[in-house]
Amino acid sequence: MPDLRLAGGEVLLHDGTWRVMRADVTVREGRIVQVGKGNGEAEKGKGLRPEAQVRDCRGCLVMPGLIQAHVHLCQTLFRGLADDLPLEDWLVRRIWPLEAAHTEETVYASALLGAAELLLGGTTAILDMETVRHTGAAFRALERIGIRATVGKCLMDVHPEGAPSDLAESTDDALTDAAALAQRWHGSAEGRLRVCFAPRFVPSCSGPLLRAASDLAERFDAQLHTHAAETIVERETVLRTTGLEEIAYLDSVGIAGRRAALAHCVWIDTHEMDRLARQGTTVVHCPSSNLKLASGVAKIPEMLAAGCHVAIGADGAPCNNGLDAFAEMRLAALIQKPRLGAGALPAAQVLELATLGGARALGLEDEIGRIAPGRRADLVVLDLSEPHLHPLLGDPVSRIVYSARASDVRDVFVEGRPVVLGHELLTAPVDHIVREADRAAAELHRLARLA
Amino acid sequence: MPDLRLAGGEVLLHDGTWRVMRADVTVREGRIVQVGKGNGEAEKGKGLRPEAQVRDCRGCLVMPGLIQAHVHLCQTLFRGLADDLPLEDWLVRRIWPLEAAHTEETVYASALLGAAELLLGGTTAILDMETVRHTGAAFRALERIGIRATVGKCLMDVHPEGAPSDLAESTDDALTDAAALAQRWHGSAEGRLRVCFAPRFVPSCSGPLLRAASDLAERFDAQLHTHAAETIVERETVLRTTGLEEIAYLDSVGIAGRRAALAHCVWIDTHEMDRLARQGTTVVHCPSSNLKLASGVAKIPEMLAAGCHVAIGADGAPCNNGLDAFAEMRLAALIQKPRLGAGALPAAQVLELATLGGARALGLEDEIGRIAPGRRADLVVLDLSEPHLHPLLGDPVSRIVYSARASDVRDVFVEGRPVVLGHELLTAPVDHIVREADRAAAELHRLARLA
Repeated sequence: MPDLRLAGGEVLLHDGTWRVMRADVTVREGRIVQVGKGNGEAEKGKGLRPEAQVRDCRGCLVMPGLIQAHVHLCQTLFRGLADDLPLEDWLVRRIWPLEAAHTEETVYASALLGAAELLLGGTTAILDMETVRHTGAAFRALERIGIRATVGKCLMDVHPEGAPSDLAESTDDALTDAAALAQRWHGSAEGRLRVCFAPRFVPSCSGPLLRAASDLAERFDAQLHTHAAETIVERETVLRTTGLEEIAYLDSVGIAGRRAALAHCVWIDTHEMDRLARQGTTVVHCPSSNLKLASGVAKIPEMLAAGCHVAIGADGAPCNNGLDAFAEMRLAALIQKPRLGAGALPAAQVLELATLGGARALGLEDEIGRIAPGRRADLVVLDLSEPHLHPLLGDPVSRIVYSARASDVRDVFVEGRPVVLGHELLTAPVDHIVREADRAAAELHRLARLA
Repeated sequence: MPDLRLAGGEVLLHDGTWRVMRADVTVREGRIVQVGKGNGEAEKGKGLRPEAQVRDCRGCLVMPGLIQAHVHLCQTLFRGLADDLPLEDWLVRRIWPLEAAHTEETVYASALLGAAELLLGGTTAILDMETVRHTGAAFRALERIGIRATVGKCLMDVHPEGAPSDLAESTDDALTDAAALAQRWHGSAEGRLRVCFAPRFVPSCSGPLLRAASDLAERFDAQLHTHAAETIVERETVLRTTGLEEIAYLDSVGIAGRRAALAHCVWIDTHEMDRLARQGTTVVHCPSSNLKLASGVAKIPEMLAAGCHVAIGADGAPCNNGLDAFAEMRLAALIQKPRLGAGALPAAQVLELATLGGARALGLEDEIGRIAPGRRADLVVLDLSEPHLHPLLGDPVSRIVYSARASDVRDVFVEGRPVVLGHELLTAPVDHIVREADRAAAELHRLARLA
């Protein structure tokens, strides 16, 4: 792979706090090797090997790729098909029938559509939960499109009320398939693709399945990815069926600690926050989803104060209805303020959730999430030329969180490889992706026989 | 002006409910004259006068221009200079010193920057409150850039605590200047520019000023534009100083009824909603601003149920930090749901606020806000090619409110005149606008001597 230099941009660095420095970022073999003052136009190739690519980033902000630690790419095709419903209806009437109808082809089209949106919008890494079947098709799509992804097939061995009869598997079948996926995909694409073990949520999983998922994560050195405490109904269901509060129950079956990422955690108490902090578990905040499904507002400032690790994610397209990290960051900052005051969850903290926090959720806290020598070169170049980003006088972190849009993303690099340049996706033709997605969505809609 | 035809798009119509029809929209002399089935490529110019412009809109959604009924273009230069502060500090420490420092040149640069962002993002009409001085400069910028705007100088004759000494005027000076602006600008640019009378808010206005503003609005057949019940502090201040609840007090001085648009109304009770509904006053909902300044969540579904007229607006750049109607619509829909359930304020209702509701706030309910023969041709063409808008299977109104972005706006027409084509602003050079804005913001920052 040729060397890469992002030259002359304002580079966003993090060493305890965020700061911006006019610098060149040099990348070799997928890693950042130097962040230093530019030598000017005459010496712009200095220190690079022949064939190096130098990308002019003057007038741009060079920032770490954004990380979303809770998405469901298999649901991208369901966008706009499940609006204005609370979570339980949303699952039973829409999501489960549609997931059960998925084929290899529709899972592939769904993952490709979602990943195209993510990359074009500056998200370079994801923690993804697919559906029960056809997770290999999602991996093939992500291998092709070039995003960094940690992907788990959805594990569920308790047949949920109202779901199609073939959505849940036996405990053994679920675990066998998950282990086979890990054998095939974990660490593939030169480490860019990894597997996680992803029990859907406590109400659709037996205790043995959860415990076995935890054991598999240890065995494969992989992450755990589930939902927790999303609604009051879920909280009460878990309390009734297990006799334990949800966070304590998950702990009892090994879904806790540095490997575990729990999406939502809207309905948890102070002592549960303390437990999550002690464990080192990551909470993944999904503000759009929590609002749209009427779940509530997660107490993120309180969790951060308690010492919890927090990441951010868009969740699936049908509960959002986008996969836009900029929209999630802005919303995360805004929704805490009426409750806690205008200073709650300031921009700098929110940007940490979408970078450092996401890296930790993926178990890659030493690899990605900030721009520094030795880190993998997952980089985003923001074009600052549009009126909505001006004046340039104020704080650049405020500009990213409160003002920037997915459409400001000019270039995206994953592991030093250009995947978006000049707002164009390089790894797959967007017109073909959206045409196939439209076709696959119509097919799914027909197969699922939605009421 | 040559005829215009937007050919072959999916056209969003409203007759009680929203529906989409594949149609051609024909425009003559600034008004829509026909919405009808296209005649195909061979006859695409049929019925048009020579020199007509035919714009291919296949694969696009043609929708009414969005209307924002509460903005402060003079604050666009303050973007990013006043983050994470509650309203009262935000005003005293940032906004008032910056407004007081404004010159003709900086007001002009600020309006041009804001209007460029608005037009590029599909907002074709605004109700704007400027600062105390230099409102003529804002009019000149808006005359040039081609947006439809109803603009008021900020009226304040009570010197607010903590504000620079020259920000407030005498009652007479304020009214004289406002009347002179109305003489000069009301109905100018072939009716595209209009004046409103804009007392800032009750705490900075005497009773006689408010009453005189109401009289001026009658005399000039113009709108009234103010803030009301934005924070609990404001509510209590008004109650203490006037002895009346704010909505009742405003009514007592003539700021009520079909001419009046009250921004925010976060802190009003049920009986005040009923009063606003009886009066026919418009409430302008500013969801981003209300969250960012920690003001609260306005009870919009309750107001609509009570029969209130509601519009939407981004407020000023420093409390948002953008002027993006798509972001406001999405947020308006999302923030009600945790409180009232996932079905609260569905997409169709939100889109009405940003079109029909805005038209009424501007006193132009028979002129703009929907696509129909006889209406003024304020039109937006949305490009549907990007991944985040697919699949195209679902409801187009959900697509606009929950998924679309300002960057999807391809073309914008105001009164039939193209102001944005192919994502490019035609009426002023964007690179020059942002450069001047950066320069003016630096100058303002220096003049205001911010702590």
